[in-house]
Amino acid sequence: MATSSLAPPEVPMELHAGNRDRLLTALRARLSATASPPRGLALLQGGEEQTRHCTDHLELFRQESYFAYLFGVREPGFYGAIDIASGQSILFAPRLPPDYAVWMGEIKPLPYFKDRYKVDLVFYVDEIVQVLQDRFSQHGKPVLFLLYGKSTDSGNYSKPASFEGIEKFDTDLGTLHPILTECRVIKSEMELALIQYANDVSSEAHIEAKPGMKEYQLESIFLHHSYRYGACRHCSYTCICATGENSSILHYGHTAAPNDRTLNDGDMALMDMGAEYNFYGSDITCSYPINGKFNSNQATVYNSVLKAHNAVISHMQPGVKWVDMHKLAEQTILESLKNEKIIHGDIADMMTRRLGAVFMPHGLGHLLGIDTHDPGGYPEGLERPKEPGLSSLRTIRELKEGMVITVEPGCYFIDALLRPARDDPVSSKFFNWEEIEKYKSFGGVRIESDLYVTAQGCKNLTNCPRETWEIEAVMAGAPWPPRASVTRAENGLPKA
Amino acid sequence: MATSSLAPPEVPMELHAGNRDRLLTALRARLSATASPPRGLALLQGGEEQTRHCTDHLELFRQESYFAYLFGVREPGFYGAIDIASGQSILFAPRLPPDYAVWMGEIKPLPYFKDRYKVDLVFYVDEIVQVLQDRFSQHGKPVLFLLYGKSTDSGNYSKPASFEGIEKFDTDLGTLHPILTECRVIKSEMELALIQYANDVSSEAHIEAKPGMKEYQLESIFLHHSYRYGACRHCSYTCICATGENSSILHYGHTAAPNDRTLNDGDMALMDMGAEYNFYGSDITCSYPINGKFNSNQATVYNSVLKAHNAVISHMQPGVKWVDMHKLAEQTILESLKNEKIIHGDIADMMTRRLGAVFMPHGLGHLLGIDTHDPGGYPEGLERPKEPGLSSLRTIRELKEGMVITVEPGCYFIDALLRPARDDPVSSKFFNWEEIEKYKSFGGVRIESDLYVTAQGCKNLTNCPRETWEIEAVMAGAPWPPRASVTRAENGLPKA
Repeated sequence: MATSSLAPPEVPMELHAGNRDRLLTALRARLSATASPPRGLALLQGGEEQTRHCTDHLELFRQESYFAYLFGVREPGFYGAIDIASGQSILFAPRLPPDYAVWMGEIKPLPYFKDRYKVDLVFYVDEIVQVLQDRFSQHGKPVLFLLYGKSTDSGNYSKPASFEGIEKFDTDLGTLHPILTECRVIKSEMELALIQYANDVSSEAHIEAKPGMKEYQLESIFLHHSYRYGACRHCSYTCICATGENSSILHYGHTAAPNDRTLNDGDMALMDMGAEYNFYGSDITCSYPINGKFNSNQATVYNSVLKAHNAVISHMQPGVKWVDMHKLAEQTILESLKNEKIIHGDIADMMTRRLGAVFMPHGLGHLLGIDTHDPGGYPEGLERPKEPGLSSLRTIRELKEGMVITVEPGCYFIDALLRPARDDPVSSKFFNWEEIEKYKSFGGVRIESDLYVTAQGCKNLTNCPRETWEIEAVMAGAPWPPRASVTRAENGLPKA
Repeated sequence: MATSSLAPPEVPMELHAGNRDRLLTALRARLSATASPPRGLALLQGGEEQTRHCTDHLELFRQESYFAYLFGVREPGFYGAIDIASGQSILFAPRLPPDYAVWMGEIKPLPYFKDRYKVDLVFYVDEIVQVLQDRFSQHGKPVLFLLYGKSTDSGNYSKPASFEGIEKFDTDLGTLHPILTECRVIKSEMELALIQYANDVSSEAHIEAKPGMKEYQLESIFLHHSYRYGACRHCSYTCICATGENSSILHYGHTAAPNDRTLNDGDMALMDMGAEYNFYGSDITCSYPINGKFNSNQATVYNSVLKAHNAVISHMQPGVKWVDMHKLAEQTILESLKNEKIIHGDIADMMTRRLGAVFMPHGLGHLLGIDTHDPGGYPEGLERPKEPGLSSLRTIRELKEGMVITVEPGCYFIDALLRPARDDPVSSKFFNWEEIEKYKSFGGVRIESDLYVTAQGCKNLTNCPRETWEIEAVMAGAPWPPRASVTRAENGLPKA
């Protein structure tokens, strides 16, 4: 029977108040440069509950991320506003019909929400026009700053708040999104504590998710450990529980490839799973041999990725360019593969030809927070690169203190990428095709940790066995963390 | 450590072929009455994957239910058609971009889908206009029968198939929905087998979901058992894990009331949870005392509900009106409450005044299948009643052989309903308010089983301990089903 040392922490609402303060500071700085004194309200609309197609099947609601960031409200149907001049925060709660009390639960009075979410004022959504007009008459004619902008990961646009009567107000669609997005890039201590807790839950659940006959059984163990012991009802993303060849499918695990393969002795497993706690997530990948012992090929690929993972972490600090870290990971992996005679030729030449992307087609890592792919990877002025591999990067920023970013190098043997590499006479000569043939059904390895960028370097929030001997020991039943309980950081593991 | 005797069954695609045959028979019968020979195609659009708000967070896809019924396709982005004259079935698969192979998995060729889903023809979605036009030129000018109609549970309308170029064809929005909905009301043997399996999984998982400190831990155990041992990745609905007063909140467990209460000695638990397997679901409620022993008040309320549950089951057979079953349950509960001096006066009088709805505001049960609230409860000509309690009925049909319907009487002490009953001078006199005061924080009891209507009566698909002594024995560690392994049906439990 699994046990756990997890203790789900109370979430201080000061966390979200702090988030609002950062927005206020940034908005005021921006607006004071263009008009003075700054007048207006940042106004956001929270998410709504969704039914499945035409039925009354309600999907479990998870708050829209920008709204969660500012207000921490878990219920659907809210609006929230922040008065830029006074700093006052206002929530608008949905007015629920009387029979809600019978079907859905107690109808909470407005003071409940004021107290729970520690905002200055609470009204009903149907009062929004009146409340805003009253503020306007007090303060002149301010503007509603609405959230409208593009996610550089999905290409989708956020939906600006809308309500009946909004046409009575002046609105601004361009200002809020980039500023609020930039606020989310740098994590506060309180945000970090939640990401750390989500990492603690997930690190522990990864250790548990070992015995099974089918991939989905490992997913089930992870979900159960995270929820039962960690109080994490949501995961940051659909679990990727890939074994054998499936481990080369980067986003395996969705409905069309649903973690349903039987585990085979001799295969590698690639488990990419992360729990979410109070909106804040984690994103962790562990790769290991299903039978508990690395064979020679498995150790080769695994250690090449681990070396890249550790090299990147040892170089991370404010000012470092993420593209350089990506290239460092690529180069480290290519060098390892060359040592093993899987490829041959000049590494610099391979780098120029972007052959690293044949083995690692995804980006090295991404910002992490309330979203798994947290926004802010490409602020105005930064353009997504076009070259193979680099084009997959979800950010190319310089690291800054306070960022949380995943480090997730991988090395995969993907037929759909090896085939064109072989067909190309120039790139083909770098590959030892006879050797690569031995990895035909290998799949791939990914090692992913969540890193917090500090003033001097970075801190690894993830605590999973990483060295092959650590993994083999844990799979043979050794405790994790080791009894002596030295953490990886204290243990002198990769740190600049 | 939990064990399980579950063996996830293979799903025969003949199940969905059978569903198509039933539709064809019904459509041809309907169309031959209006025009001959019947010409046209029933055309449905499957569901699409959804991202969360503006992010690239993909929700785990679950197929739209009507589409699942006819084609069994689990992947998003499909269309499906059935030629009414020839009976040929056609799937249209999305044409996936080459990098799908790297990120999402193997790009399956069309013959894969033809073989997997056992249809007659498979094309790409982008060929739909051409394929349909070719059929038209062969067969004259037929009509596309699209799915458009209202869910009587949600009030939402199904979205008819749409694609670029659909304006080139004649379409019919009114014919398909009621006919297809009616097909779903009567379950085939193969459908029944899946609902039985989902019941087996859930019955077993309900037994496991006992030890915990928090309500959500019971949910987590249920989910885990259903997925790990039963291969059920989805549940039919969000788990309702209500204890103490929460057990009077009929749809507890959603985000705004998220199964987060600490379990208390002396409280009742009401667990309404059901697993889903290959689209087909289950819907089971067990109520029990958290400390494993019914006290007197708990036994009183529990037994009043159990008596209603058993009385209904013993009366169910084809031709019986569901409204009468609802009233039978109400009356049985009122009689029990009267025996216990919780209410007093003439039962018939109470029934006329619909006072049963104070204790049981929801309907007795609903059709169950691919949706938890399966459609077809109110075919044309049946109107939803207006009276308290009856107005909550999701169907008022006569029972027919082949229906699967839940029987879920409940008795709750709901402040929001007791208050107006007390304030009303006429209804107030039926209640012994002093006695009711003792149940103030009791919450409620619901007992829910899934019943299959047979030619002579009905079959209970659910196998959970129901008698108070059975529950107490299982909570004290006795095996379930009992070692002698007599099933409830064999055991002579409620059966007409």
